[in-house]
Amino acid sequence: MVSGKSLIAGNWEEGQGSSFTSFSPLDGSKLNDYRGVNSSQVDRAVNAASEAYLVFKALDFDKRAAFIEDVASEVEALGDELLEVCNQETGLGIPRLTGERARTCGQLRAFASLIREGSWQQASIDTAIPDRKPLPRPDIRSILAPIGPVAVFSASNFPLAFSTLGGDTASALAAGNPVIVKGHPSHPATSELCARAIEKAIEKNNFPKAVFSLLQGADPLVSNELVKHPKIEAVGFTGSTHVGRTLFDQASSRPKPIPVFAEMGSANPLFILANAVKNRTSEIANGLAGSITLGTGQFCTKPGLVFMLTSADTEAFKGKLVAALEQIPDAVLLNANIKTGLQQKLTAYSNKSELLKLTGNTVGGGYLFTVSATDFIKNPELEEEVFGPAALIIECKDMDEMTKAASQLGGHLTGTIHTDNDEEAEKLKSILEEKVGRIIYNGFPTGVEVCPSMHHGGPYPSSTFAAATSVGTAAIKRFCKVVSYQNAPQGHLPEGLKNENPRGIMRLVNGKYSTSKI
Amino acid sequence: MVSGKSLIAGNWEEGQGSSFTSFSPLDGSKLNDYRGVNSSQVDRAVNAASEAYLVFKALDFDKRAAFIEDVASEVEALGDELLEVCNQETGLGIPRLTGERARTCGQLRAFASLIREGSWQQASIDTAIPDRKPLPRPDIRSILAPIGPVAVFSASNFPLAFSTLGGDTASALAAGNPVIVKGHPSHPATSELCARAIEKAIEKNNFPKAVFSLLQGADPLVSNELVKHPKIEAVGFTGSTHVGRTLFDQASSRPKPIPVFAEMGSANPLFILANAVKNRTSEIANGLAGSITLGTGQFCTKPGLVFMLTSADTEAFKGKLVAALEQIPDAVLLNANIKTGLQQKLTAYSNKSELLKLTGNTVGGGYLFTVSATDFIKNPELEEEVFGPAALIIECKDMDEMTKAASQLGGHLTGTIHTDNDEEAEKLKSILEEKVGRIIYNGFPTGVEVCPSMHHGGPYPSSTFAAATSVGTAAIKRFCKVVSYQNAPQGHLPEGLKNENPRGIMRLVNGKYSTSKI
Repeated sequence: MVSGKSLIAGNWEEGQGSSFTSFSPLDGSKLNDYRGVNSSQVDRAVNAASEAYLVFKALDFDKRAAFIEDVASEVEALGDELLEVCNQETGLGIPRLTGERARTCGQLRAFASLIREGSWQQASIDTAIPDRKPLPRPDIRSILAPIGPVAVFSASNFPLAFSTLGGDTASALAAGNPVIVKGHPSHPATSELCARAIEKAIEKNNFPKAVFSLLQGADPLVSNELVKHPKIEAVGFTGSTHVGRTLFDQASSRPKPIPVFAEMGSANPLFILANAVKNRTSEIANGLAGSITLGTGQFCTKPGLVFMLTSADTEAFKGKLVAALEQIPDAVLLNANIKTGLQQKLTAYSNKSELLKLTGNTVGGGYLFTVSATDFIKNPELEEEVFGPAALIIECKDMDEMTKAASQLGGHLTGTIHTDNDEEAEKLKSILEEKVGRIIYNGFPTGVEVCPSMHHGGPYPSSTFAAATSVGTAAIKRFCKVVSYQNAPQGHLPEGLKNENPRGIMRLVNGKYSTSKI
Repeated sequence: MVSGKSLIAGNWEEGQGSSFTSFSPLDGSKLNDYRGVNSSQVDRAVNAASEAYLVFKALDFDKRAAFIEDVASEVEALGDELLEVCNQETGLGIPRLTGERARTCGQLRAFASLIREGSWQQASIDTAIPDRKPLPRPDIRSILAPIGPVAVFSASNFPLAFSTLGGDTASALAAGNPVIVKGHPSHPATSELCARAIEKAIEKNNFPKAVFSLLQGADPLVSNELVKHPKIEAVGFTGSTHVGRTLFDQASSRPKPIPVFAEMGSANPLFILANAVKNRTSEIANGLAGSITLGTGQFCTKPGLVFMLTSADTEAFKGKLVAALEQIPDAVLLNANIKTGLQQKLTAYSNKSELLKLTGNTVGGGYLFTVSATDFIKNPELEEEVFGPAALIIECKDMDEMTKAASQLGGHLTGTIHTDNDEEAEKLKSILEEKVGRIIYNGFPTGVEVCPSMHHGGPYPSSTFAAATSVGTAAIKRFCKVVSYQNAPQGHLPEGLKNENPRGIMRLVNGKYSTSKI
């Protein structure tokens, strides 16, 4: 039974702000009425988080790790209720949500393992050289440290893995920061269930309650108040470029600016070179149709731009891609806003004389358009993400035109090259290194592996920091600062910098990597 | 012989913008007239740097390292002329400038060694698991990569180590980025000499000329144009909070925002606990007097705020500190702006009824004031940096009041604790971890060691990114993005990610550290 309340520093409270309603995207029916929080509720959640921080940051990593593992177990303990409530709110289907729950719990446990192992802290030690001339060298040690309360804005398209207990929350908690989640109004009951899971883990571990709060709401003013609160130290966000940029601007114009790690989606250009389309026509066409329509095309890594060379092979490919798309059943979109937004984009595309529609009838089914590279270059708005199962083939006269079009792209999360000729693709690769965060060879960008090497980010506008990832264990670094200690007594040093190195972590000691004691 | 010109992508050009004049701070005499660059010169420098970038980023690390070492040698080859010209422009004195030149060349060589060794790249490799269920795991590899042209705004107080060829330039070049320096108008001839040194190294190595440009100028509009140029990807800055924040705001409001790594100075709070002042009265007083007046107090780490407990020991300490300050000869300030700014602050301090002046007569000599902690807390403007040889003792009734005052501080580069009782200082340490980038025990904050563990940065307003350092080899990470590769052919991977690991660098391989081949 969903309460409709917000979890503010350990108490479930009725919101005192403006109302909103949740709907089922499966049939458009109304699910629940909510009241979002108001300013004073935001203020209380953040102030309590700021106090909880001083306790939370000092806890042993083993305790922090055990707590995060308990969060994962409590999510699993929600059982079928979580999947059913989430499916009602998102229409993503039980099989997909079962997989996404596994991913969500897997992420939490990966961060727990990471902090228990400890080497992620980038500990660096330069020992003293008392007899150095002209001046002695002091003992200097530095390490990653938590930063304080983090505001997390959850995404609609991954209601578990990028939402209330998703990667942003998991990485911010693992780094030692309290988290205040602004729940996505598209799946508030899912958020409430997840908040209950973390509430149980907090109680079980006897942690400060304000280590986590969930604020329900659909009012942008509340988001602004959260970002502008002087005790918020960083923001994690996944969503549209428009909203991400708004939060970034709010955070950058604070008296004390704070970083906003916004992952804002992209059109994920995909390049199919001549040999590849000839040798693997059906394989690529079928794989691409699956990637375009996965999750009803509502993935930030959906390939929306497909660059090909004009040829008979490409013509054959287009036929196969259209056929493959037409065999995939229509599916529901996450909410009315996304559906309206997609409808408008598709209408605009259909009305554009430079574009030719190859297939597409109903919103929620696969759409495919083509355009010449010349017209693509002339119409920069065609590079914008279309959030839904739609793609645009850009036909290039030759490799020169293809690399020219690639050179003029903005930032995207991913870029994909299908090639059976590495040499021919060399220049394209060099261009994509400046345009995307992940270059995929002979595959598809959807399916973002959670692992230490994953980089899910990219040049603006795909994200706000091209060095930051929101997927994979490296995401923890976003929510850290660095503190260094000069000639500190052992008792004042964080564990990772003590001589004895109790966890045996990898450290840079006088410029050399070592897991030894000092 | 100084030409007064700017170095724009390999050509020495007369500036086409507004004029400025350099003066000797030693006697106020006029040195040279200059014309700064105009918009079209900025534009040409950046566009050329953007083209040079694609060549520069692809060069082998050994070539890049040799080039940076050549820059250091060419600086040394400038000989006494550099020191004399620099002393004329800054008045810092030949001994200090000799040391600073050694530091500047040492920094350059440290970055050369760093990139030659190669482990700084944070290479991470997760190998494929083709038979994983339900889906195979792809091969994913990620690494730090350069970002493109970097604009560097040089500082007045370190005309060599934080200026044209200072740490920002060295780290940006080491990362593989072209650099456009906006020279400080307080020492344009020094900048020109340094630019000639790097020009020679570029010629010797046959590198693209636009890897480095020096733009002379004193017009804030030109700075704005440089920061706003669409092909500039990041900014490094050392200077005042006002100018740093202005550049940050300009960069954050671009259509494509870029990071500004601004180190903006601080008041560097120093806490002297009861035991320490009793046991080491003269030692601390003499050391502190030296630290306050070092470089005429024009260090970003000058200790400006001294927190002490009211006691007879503190009274004795104040007497010794005054005596020590009065024995230090007056010295010149870097330029007329700094002198006027300091004069105004000192007058304001002298006129404030809450403050008592203990010593201080002439601008350029040591000034010392005291204030009660109660009044300090009531007057937050007293926390602002006073750039010059001046300090303020804040007298606290007890440790509670001292920790309360510490809790209310904003961000500073450093915080220092003098204590002979670690336990008593524990709480203060925990507070300072949230307020400063470097905590110093029983020492003084001036003297910033260049080493891998150094962190020269701190919470806002001391810097714009609390995770970034502008001193030490970790500074290179500021000017990098991350690129990941999925199922890439070996030939397309950067050296650090290739199976063979030719340089034997430390990498994270399937989550474990290793220097082995794959």
